[in-house]
Amino acid sequence: MADNRKDREANKTIDDLIVDIERRIKLFQEGIDENAQAYEIAELLEEVRELNKERYIELLKSFPEDLKADVLSELSKNAQEDALEAIDAKELADIIEEMDTDDAADIVQQIEELDESKAKKVLNEIDEAESKVIRALISYDEDEAGAYMQTELFKAHIDETIGESIKRLKELKNREELDNAYHVFIVDNKNRFLGMMPMEDLVLQGPNEVYRNVLEKEGALTVTVKPNDPIDKVIELAGNYNMNVIPVVDNWGILLGRITADDIYDLMEKQATDQIYGMAGVQEESEESENIIKAGKTRAFWLGVNLITAIAASVVIGLFDSTIQSIVALAVLMPIVASMGGNAGTQSLTVTVRQLALGDIDPTEAKQVIKKEVLLSLGNGLVYAVVMGLIAYFWFNMPMLGVVIGLSMIINLFFAGFFGALIPLVLKGLGIDPAVGSSVLLTTVTDVVGFFSFLGLATLILL
Amino acid sequence: MADNRKDREANKTIDDLIVDIERRIKLFQEGIDENAQAYEIAELLEEVRELNKERYIELLKSFPEDLKADVLSELSKNAQEDALEAIDAKELADIIEEMDTDDAADIVQQIEELDESKAKKVLNEIDEAESKVIRALISYDEDEAGAYMQTELFKAHIDETIGESIKRLKELKNREELDNAYHVFIVDNKNRFLGMMPMEDLVLQGPNEVYRNVLEKEGALTVTVKPNDPIDKVIELAGNYNMNVIPVVDNWGILLGRITADDIYDLMEKQATDQIYGMAGVQEESEESENIIKAGKTRAFWLGVNLITAIAASVVIGLFDSTIQSIVALAVLMPIVASMGGNAGTQSLTVTVRQLALGDIDPTEAKQVIKKEVLLSLGNGLVYAVVMGLIAYFWFNMPMLGVVIGLSMIINLFFAGFFGALIPLVLKGLGIDPAVGSSVLLTTVTDVVGFFSFLGLATLILL
Repeated sequence: MADNRKDREANKTIDDLIVDIERRIKLFQEGIDENAQAYEIAELLEEVRELNKERYIELLKSFPEDLKADVLSELSKNAQEDALEAIDAKELADIIEEMDTDDAADIVQQIEELDESKAKKVLNEIDEAESKVIRALISYDEDEAGAYMQTELFKAHIDETIGESIKRLKELKNREELDNAYHVFIVDNKNRFLGMMPMEDLVLQGPNEVYRNVLEKEGALTVTVKPNDPIDKVIELAGNYNMNVIPVVDNWGILLGRITADDIYDLMEKQATDQIYGMAGVQEESEESENIIKAGKTRAFWLGVNLITAIAASVVIGLFDSTIQSIVALAVLMPIVASMGGNAGTQSLTVTVRQLALGDIDPTEAKQVIKKEVLLSLGNGLVYAVVMGLIAYFWFNMPMLGVVIGLSMIINLFFAGFFGALIPLVLKGLGIDPAVGSSVLLTTVTDVVGFFSFLGLATLILL
Repeated sequence: MADNRKDREANKTIDDLIVDIERRIKLFQEGIDENAQAYEIAELLEEVRELNKERYIELLKSFPEDLKADVLSELSKNAQEDALEAIDAKELADIIEEMDTDDAADIVQQIEELDESKAKKVLNEIDEAESKVIRALISYDEDEAGAYMQTELFKAHIDETIGESIKRLKELKNREELDNAYHVFIVDNKNRFLGMMPMEDLVLQGPNEVYRNVLEKEGALTVTVKPNDPIDKVIELAGNYNMNVIPVVDNWGILLGRITADDIYDLMEKQATDQIYGMAGVQEESEESENIIKAGKTRAFWLGVNLITAIAASVVIGLFDSTIQSIVALAVLMPIVASMGGNAGTQSLTVTVRQLALGDIDPTEAKQVIKKEVLLSLGNGLVYAVVMGLIAYFWFNMPMLGVVIGLSMIINLFFAGFFGALIPLVLKGLGIDPAVGSSVLLTTVTDVVGFFSFLGLATLILL
């Protein structure tokens, strides 16, 4: 794929891109890899947009309605915004009606962010039942399962025969109201969810078989989430139970919708990106924006926090300025103690943050986790204390300087392991995301402890 | 789920755990959430194992064969190893025959790592056709798509009628040879892959319809991977094209198997964990081991690399020892310049590493990426240069010290952004994982540049 893109980006003109787009539209209309075509057309459109924004809008507008819907969902947020501004409410409503409800809710929410009155107009133009569903989906927070749910699914009543239900499926399909069914969701009179089975089970049963019997004979999938459940739970269930579709029910067990594998992929990637970015003090949403100032501001915030903690560490150094003045070697060596502590601590921190996220450990196991991390960090601390002690000894020809740096390294790596594990565990216990900011907290500890123990011991032992 | 586990871990005895396990076995046998039950039983077994290893093995051995297979696949690597050592070759062969081929290959590979002669025995006990498949799957590298493929799938010939193929599906199902079909894979006489369609399309067609006609009318999914493709490609395809099953074909288009959503979930999590761990200098495989020495060794390696780079930075400081001796304030302030550079550089590095992994950028776009990162880092550098310059001025009452720290901060944050983007781009271009080790390389740059520019400017301006 990268090679593919490389070729494309070589020096393609808009006309070259359009030829490629038209070829893919034909495939899309023949039903050959519709999702893949929509994605690739969206990628090609992004290139057109980089060359000429007006042509981009023109082209998008010229697409057939169903392709417009699929492509719009696949575009980057910045490209979407351009399109949502350029296309009028009436046409947007037509496009949105072609979308699955989860994608539709996504787009309406974005219109709302750009122009609230336009969003209202769009919702008024949409079929009432659907606009009600969209309004409900928008109301969920982006960290809640409900925000990723689609209401399109294939449902059957427990006392229905398979033949009857298949007739309904055919109608749904003919009206193009349901793309990928994959499962049948079995419900009772009150629309309460009773179980889900893969479509192939229908193929295997006679058309006169009643669902109740199939359910009794074959079992079913009954694990669900609630719309207010955190998305981390969705990811955990999907991964642990190998579910490619997760039903969403309310507190009374009423079936509301389903979350499909493509959304689960997105959620997993988002979760991982949030963690990686959080630990470095950057934020996905700001980084994605084309407005570089937005990314700069978020980064500046964490750099500012880092500056404060760095100054704190400097204040510690300042306490020992006369010691440094008499032995300059201390100024030369002190960053090593801090750096090793920061590194060992980051190792502990990273492992703890990630294992918390994957559900491999939880705050109740704090004791074991801390013990393990302290052992690891301290163990390596002992090894490198000896190594660095000898180096310092030979470098400055001062045996006791070797002792001082060795001891302070042991002390700092002990604290590095301890706080590397403790900080994320405490944050998680408090309900705070353990990835964000934990790294700055940790290096404050390892810098302060590193400088204090090294310069303090030097003052005691060497002066 | 965390709450659930918390309750369980409170103070459960083995007998409590067994009651829970037995309840879940019953549900498993009734077909209610089989995957979920297998996962939960595996989790409960892990707790039994912590209390008593022998009871763990006894319990596992007492399970019905199909449950044994499912549970064994869900156990942690350490628990699996215990079981693979305790169960004899003949019984292992029976269990493995119950597994899907991808899980079977996984287990056989582990047996091989523990005891090669036992692995041979196991393979000899397994049905010849299946053991041939397993041998082939084991031959793939763990970074290759083939290693995650299963050969179980539902295939139909292009000139077959749907009715005939459904008859075969029923037989496969009755012989329990295929669990989750989800799609039908259409092939020609030579077993060349022609397209895949969801099972529901079969429900909608009459039994006398021939696949060739359906394919022409409805289209199909035709995107595939090759067994030697890197798993990153699998993840990219799944995410971009919203595929929950990916067919695997060889160079001649012959259908070899499929990769299913549950494996894609695992791959996505593994990719993210590798990145997060790689940047911190830890390694998943060593961390997972119960042998703490193994984790310690990998961590020690990166700490050792860090020590070397920290010493390099100290050598730079050593060049300016007489400057420091005359102005001790320099020793107090110098870690701030290095720390801010390290932080800003890590922000650039993290964003670049992640966007490379997600395919959002690639090395051909190096110029733009570097430009953006330099702008961001330098922009924040200017802001904090002024802030820190003023602080240094008032703290030590030396206006020119403020100028020196401000200038060196600007220089260091310029290099931080530049190398933060450049290092992962170059590594990726060289085919090296840009997450691993890039962080150490970067902080070497920001430490050396930070100390050199600060102390160098101080020597020039202040002395």
